[in-house]
Parts: sequence; C-alpha cells; structure tokens
Amino acid sequence: MHRVAFQGDRGAFSEEAARGLLGVAVETLPCRSFEQTFASVSEGRADCAVLPIENALAGSVHRNYDLLEEHRLAIAREAYVRIRLDVIVPPGVELAAVRRVHSHPVALAQCQRFLAAHPAIEPVAAWDTAGSVALVLERGDTGEAAIAGPAAAAIHGGVVVAESIEDHKRNYTRFLLLTPPDRVAGHQEGTWPRWKTSVVFRTPDRAGALFRALAAFALRDVNLSKIESRPIEGRPWEYSFHLDVSGRRGDEPVDRALAHLDEMAESLRILGSYPAADAPLEGPG
Amino acid sequence: MHRVAFQGDRGAFSEEAARGLLGVAVETLPCRSFEQTFASVSEGRADCAVLPIENALAGSVHRNYDLLEEHRLAIAREAYVRIRLDVIVPPGVELAAVRRVHSHPVALAQCQRFLAAHPAIEPVAAWDTAGSVALVLERGDTGEAAIAGPAAAAIHGGVVVAESIEDHKRNYTRFLLLTPPDRVAGHQEGTWPRWKTSVVFRTPDRAGALFRALAAFALRDVNLSKIESRPIEGRPWEYSFHLDVSGRRGDEPVDRALAHLDEMAESLRILGSYPAADAPLEGPG
Repeated sequence: MHRVAFQGDRGAFSEEAARGLLGVAVETLPCRSFEQTFASVSEGRADCAVLPIENALAGSVHRNYDLLEEHRLAIAREAYVRIRLDVIVPPGVELAAVRRVHSHPVALAQCQRFLAAHPAIEPVAAWDTAGSVALVLERGDTGEAAIAGPAAAAIHGGVVVAESIEDHKRNYTRFLLLTPPDRVAGHQEGTWPRWKTSVVFRTPDRAGALFRALAAFALRDVNLSKIESRPIEGRPWEYSFHLDVSGRRGDEPVDRALAHLDEMAESLRILGSYPAADAPLEGPG
Repeated sequence: MHRVAFQGDRGAFSEEAARGLLGVAVETLPCRSFEQTFASVSEGRADCAVLPIENALAGSVHRNYDLLEEHRLAIAREAYVRIRLDVIVPPGVELAAVRRVHSHPVALAQCQRFLAAHPAIEPVAAWDTAGSVALVLERGDTGEAAIAGPAAAAIHGGVVVAESIEDHKRNYTRFLLLTPPDRVAGHQEGTWPRWKTSVVFRTPDRAGALFRALAAFALRDVNLSKIESRPIEGRPWEYSFHLDVSGRRGDEPVDRALAHLDEMAESLRILGSYPAADAPLEGPG
C-alpha cells in the first residue's frame, strides 16, 4: 500500500508527479498546504509525500526548503514534470466571454504573453492552479476561467479553450518524494547510473565559513548541482545552506566529503541519497 | 529634484523605505509591478527606484534579483524597514464583522497566529499590502478588511482595528536604492564606517566552479554576507550567483578579489559599492 500526500487540489502537477513516481494506480491525498502535506506523513495519514522543490524558470520553492529542514522526512526519489498551462472554463463558456482568470501567481507570471494579448481578461491570484479550476467550475460563471494543467481540466470536468499558453515551453518543475527515514526503500545497486545526495547545514558566522564548507566537496571533485541559502527563523540575517551533490552515501569520496563538512559546519543533516532523474534539457516546444 | 519609483500603492513599505533613504519630502511614483519600477527609471519617468530585496523571515525577493541582472541600474544605498502589520477596515466597521481579509500572500503567511485565532476570517491573496487597503476602502463592505502597515491605513483613510498582528516582531525588510550607473552620488570618504559591494556572476558548468569563484574572496579575508542563486532564463538548471561582500571598490583586497573573480567567472557585473546599513538585530517586540 502506498498513499501519497500532495499539496493542491485533484489534478495538480504534484499529483501528476506522484503518479509518475509511484504508478498511475497510487492512492493520492490532496492537502491544503505544504505544511499539511508534511504533517500527513508525520502523523501517519499518508506513507509518503510528493513536493515541488524547484521550477526551471521561477526557481526554488523556498517554503519547502524550510519545511525539509524543520521536518524529519528523507528524500527517496526525484522527478521532473513539464508544466503545460491551459485556459480552462465551465462547459459552454467561450474564451471571448472571459473577463477574469484565476491561478497561482507563479502560473500567471508564466503566461505574460497570453495576458498581454487579452487585455480584457483580469488575472486574479489564487492559492493553487488545480484549485482555481475547481473554484471556476463550481461557480459556473460565464465570465471566469482558470489557468492550470490539462489533468486539472479532465478531473474537474472543465473545457480547455486555449492550450499551452505558457511563455516558455521548456518549463519543468522538479519534485521530491519524501518518506519517513526508516522507510526509504532500498534502491537496487547498479540499476541507477547517477545518484544525488542532498544535505542542509549551517555555518558559524565568520569570514570564509561557506568557502570552507564547500571545500569539503571541491577538494574531492564531488560536483555540486545546486546551492540554496535560506534565512534561519529567529536569527535574522543568518542562513542555512541546502546543497545537492553528485554521488551517494557509501561512495568513498562522498562519505569523506560529508565527514569533512560535518567538521566545518555548525550543524549538518543528510536529507537523502537517491537516483538522479534526468533534468529535461529540451522541451517539446 | 528626486522622484523615486516604488512598487505598490501609496503607503507601501517600499514608499516608507524611500522616505527613510531620501527624506520625507521626496516625490514618490507608485508602480504596478517591479518591472515597471525598473522601467520608470530606464525611461526617465523617475530618477531612482527603491525595491525590496530580502525579508528577514521570508527570504529573498527573487524576482528583483533577476531584474537587477536584466537591467543596467546600480545600487546606491540600502535600508532596513521594520514590517509591522495591522488589520485595517473602512471607518465604522468592527473586527467582529470581518469575514475576509485581503493582503499579499507573504504578509498573510506572517500573520498565522492571528488567522488561527480568528477562524471565521478567510484570507484572500492580493497583489500588494497597501493596494489591498485601497481596495477594501473603495468597496466599503463591512465584511472586508486588509492587512498592511500603519502608513497604508493613514494614507487611504482606513481604521486600524488590530495592531501589530505579525507573528514575529523581529521582522525587517532590506530595500535597495537603485539609480542609473552614471548618477550614483559620491559618498563622502570616511563618513561611512562600513561598506558593502554587490556583484552578480555566472560560472562555467563544471565541478568546483562556484568554489573557485568564492576563493577570490576567502583567500583575501573579504567577508561574504549573502549568496543567492537564480535560474538563468533559457538555460534550464544553470544559475547566476548574487554575492554581497564586505568592503568597497577602491579597497585593495576588494579590487583584487573582483579581478580574481572576473578571471574565474563566465561573466561578472558589479552592481555597486554602497554604505552598509545596520541590519537591525533586535526588534522592539
């Protein structure tokens, strides 16, 4: 049995990522917020969670970096999902009648060309993309539409009146599969050619502290694929650093680099070693 | 003459930062978006712009890091403003009657305790804090309120029915004053004890590239106060790095470090050297 928690309404990109990672038949649990998605796993209502961590255009989902540090879940897998955005309306409504379009602010920001070409349509900020489809369908107002992915239209019974309106077709989001640390499934040795290890650490507040921390990896030719700094709550202008590096625990250079980092850092937590998914470099469009 | 552009409606925290930096009598120009704030200066409608770049709790304003790289403006000063959030209503409305509260999603997220204590009030996402005050006052609906700073209430004629409802009192935002590069006013030598220099650079895509870039500063004991990575548009999963370092151009270690960085980096732009404002470590609450 696998029940996977995700943030958003049915048909969200996170649910699509969950099906891609765990199979189309997986049982999914929609959650209102990212916090509730983590809590669903901590409190046993779900076995695992799927969360967006980074979008190729908009950058990191910072709240989720903070929640990764606050909660005790481990990263078990990663996946990339293409973000295609459609204009979705109640059945019988025509695009020409639409006066307001609801969606998440990040999705609205990624459809600037469409919005500029349709000045009569006012963009309205909503909490999530799939949820705005549910809202518009429920109201059934002929003047209202939502911007979301095609899965949200299909699930909520909406009609797509404009397809793939996102400004950039090479638009992908990276998702993480999170599980309790004692339940990370063993990945078969040799099956995966490339691995990634994610860590979060804090440095003492002195010159060169971050440089010394990164030396742990650079001196051993362990490649760094991402660095993200996040403010520490209650310690204004101090930061936690999240790193993704190539390789896995059990590889000697990675193990030695992590031991070295542990020595340099004020605190260190290893979030997980997991098979690296291919970052889609070329979109279909 | 100084006309300063800012994003948001009259009474926004950015306008407060502008008055703190340039004097209470400065002429201010409200702009709808961050893009338009930059464009106001590039196109000569304003002499300079004030923009939020980082909040002590929520972290960086990522869009503005991208715009700093895209546009050719220089950083001339920085300032910190305390973010106090009030519940603001039309005259005659009581808190008990309020059913919907409008504000920017980041402001709503920073008032979780208040919202949890008032479950009958539904939070509604808006484009900016001061603008949500203007909206609520214009509608004059007895069931609607806005969350914004006290200046927004004063300017739009709203009434504060709950004061300082933000979860954390040590809540500050760092703002930057931007001007055309040829118009950065000379700062008097010796007047400012501490300086900061901001740069943005890209590294070649190979192992250790960021480490080698940071070495330029670490080897000369030039302190790093902030690092921020941003995705590069059109080059998925590649990044620009923004650094703030201690010191100013003209100081030998800083000049040598910048020359060294220029050698290591694929591209480098120096955004400005400016007097470092004191980061307020202790809030009043």
